[in-house]
Order: sequence, then C-alpha cells, then structure tokens
Amino acid sequence: MAGAAGSDPTARPAPVGEAAILQAAIAVMAEHGYHGTSVRDIAERAGLSAGALYHHFASKQEVLATIMERGIKALLSRTRTALDGAGDDPVARLRALVEVQILFHLQDQRGTLLGTSELRALEEPVRTRHLAKRAQQQRLFDAVVADGVERGVFATPLASEASRAIVVMCTGVAAWFSPSGRLSGRQLVARYQRLALAMVGGPAPEDDTG
Amino acid sequence: MAGAAGSDPTARPAPVGEAAILQAAIAVMAEHGYHGTSVRDIAERAGLSAGALYHHFASKQEVLATIMERGIKALLSRTRTALDGAGDDPVARLRALVEVQILFHLQDQRGTLLGTSELRALEEPVRTRHLAKRAQQQRLFDAVVADGVERGVFATPLASEASRAIVVMCTGVAAWFSPSGRLSGRQLVARYQRLALAMVGGPAPEDDTG
Repeated sequence: MAGAAGSDPTARPAPVGEAAILQAAIAVMAEHGYHGTSVRDIAERAGLSAGALYHHFASKQEVLATIMERGIKALLSRTRTALDGAGDDPVARLRALVEVQILFHLQDQRGTLLGTSELRALEEPVRTRHLAKRAQQQRLFDAVVADGVERGVFATPLASEASRAIVVMCTGVAAWFSPSGRLSGRQLVARYQRLALAMVGGPAPEDDTG
Repeated sequence: MAGAAGSDPTARPAPVGEAAILQAAIAVMAEHGYHGTSVRDIAERAGLSAGALYHHFASKQEVLATIMERGIKALLSRTRTALDGAGDDPVARLRALVEVQILFHLQDQRGTLLGTSELRALEEPVRTRHLAKRAQQQRLFDAVVADGVERGVFATPLASEASRAIVVMCTGVAAWFSPSGRLSGRQLVARYQRLALAMVGGPAPEDDTG
C-alpha cells in the first residue's frame, strides 16, 4: 500500500487543477450531499472560478462520476496487486484482501462515505458500470474464500455470506474509525484479519492482535 | 418481531397525517437526499399541502430528526425486549441480537440507508443525542459478547472489535438485501447468527444454515 494516494481519489496522476477539484468536491459533498452542493461551491472550495471548473468537467454529475469511477478502479487495481503478491495460501490471500480493503477506505474516509451515500445520485450508464465494478471487487473476495473452503483450509459452510460480510465490515471502518483512537490503522488490520479468518473457519492464528 | 412497523418508521401509533409525512419524507430523501428535498416535495409525496405539513412539523429538519429519533428508539426498545426474552445463555443472547438487528433494518431498508447517509444533515443537539443512542445500541452487543468471553463461552481475544463488526455487518444487509433474492430474511438471520458466533469463537452450531 506504499505510495497510496491519501485523500486524493485519483488512480493516476492528474493535473493539479483536476485533482484539486475532485478533492474539493469530496469535501463539500461530504458536508452537504451531492444535491446540496453546487458547481460554484466546489469551485470556491478548490479556489477556482466556476468557469475554470468547467474547463475540466462538463457538469457536477461528471465530477461525481469521476470520483466514483477512479475510486473503484483504484481499489480493484490495488486489490489485484495485493493478491498477486500474496502467493497461493488462502490464509495469506484473505489477509491481503482485508488489509487492502481497510487501508484503502481509511485513506479516504470521506470519499468512502460519499461512495456509499451518493450512489443514488450517480446517473446511468455510469451507475450500472460502477455497480458492476463493485461486484467484481466482491468476487475477488468470494473466489479467495471459496478456494480456501475447497482446499479444506476454511471450514465455513457459508462461504458467500462470509465473503460479503467481510467486505461490509472492512469497508464499514470508514464510518467509525478515528485516527486519534486507541488503535492504529495497522492494528485494526491485524485484528480484522483475525476476525475474518475466524468467520470463515480458518486455522487458529498466531498472535497478531496488535 | 411480530407487529413490527414495516416501512413505518414510527415507534408508537401516530396520526395518519404525521405517519404519512414521515413515510413520504423517507421515500423522497432516499431518492434525492436531505439537501435535495424540499418541504414541498415531502408534502406532495404525502398528498398534502405544505401548509398541512407545517401543522405537524416546524421544518424539514424536524421531519428528519423525528425519523432518526423514532428509528433509533424503536431499535433500542426491540433489542432490549429481545434480550429480555433470550434468557441467560450468551449464545442465545447473541443470536437474539443478530435477529433484531437484521430484521429491523430489513423492514425499512430505505430508512436505514437514510439514517446512515443523512446523519451529517442532522443538526445539534439532536445529532449528539442520536449518536449517544447509537452508542447505547452498540453497548448492548458489547455487553453480550464480553459476558460470553468472561464465562468462557466465546473464545475471541477481540471482543469489542467482534461486537462492532457484528453490528456493522448486520446493519449493512439493508444496503444489498433483495426480498426477491435467493435467501429469505429468516434464512439470512440464521446464516448471520452462525457467522457472528464463528467470529466470537462460540461453540460449534447445530445445523441452522437455513
């Protein structure tokens, strides 16, 4: 997860103006919601004129679509990279998935909450495309859990339910985690790896509770 | 859970006009968000004039506050009733908690999502009061898991993290469950009871996977 983009939702290098607009949009929409936010609000927060914003994006909807699409693409890309690096062991692969899912969503807690609460504001065909990519992300978890069950490493009879619950609980940290709380992000990851392994009936862990 | 209010967010019998307004507000805000919804929109959806709405509520904020407050109060009340009926066994108590948390949120999926996405729109002091009640709900789960650990029924070394993850995954069903999907709400409850028990290191279950 080194080199992760922090609060920057973009998956690839973007012009300064564009990145600033997307960050400003996440901040303003997190406060007022998509429908409560105007193009002018976003431009003001980014320190630009509305005209300058329209140089980069045709509409508020295009700003939202860009935030959502880059977010899910970045998540998918990092998840695949983590799986590539995790080797063949289902335990290591599930641990890698939990780590990426938590750290990605903690890096941009406001963006995560926006991705959940403003999904309804995304227009077609972008919305359907976005949901398809979220389903892809879920299937990466499903495949790891199913593989672990098939190989006798995970004992759960509820592979698909466990897989979905793991994604929900790892994504959900963005709604409550506080960087000033008693656990660091890394400690949280270690504990959730252990919870996820317990849920799928994985082998008893070494002590990694952080 | 018999006699539950279905899509009606009210915890006690309300005048027809008031209940209709609250249901209309949930429906319109689920589509357009709090800030994208006007008092007129809510009144129109409820088949009333804006003037008639103001007879019941002083503002759009009061409508939202009423929805949120009644929702969390009803959840707390049903949860305490379920615990009272569950007896002393930590397994039975955790199963009761999972059942209430899931069925309550499935009964009003739009209201649940509103409660998550429009928390930011709730003004003080209502917001702080609401968060305190949500924390109370979490503590009911915390107490059951901690008691199970203390009595050696649950083996997890991560009681508080497991308790929070269980609340998040049970509440989260509102975001993805489809009544026309392959599982009924009851089957979902049985499977999540099993997952929750696995996460806390509970005893191996009888076959209750629905």
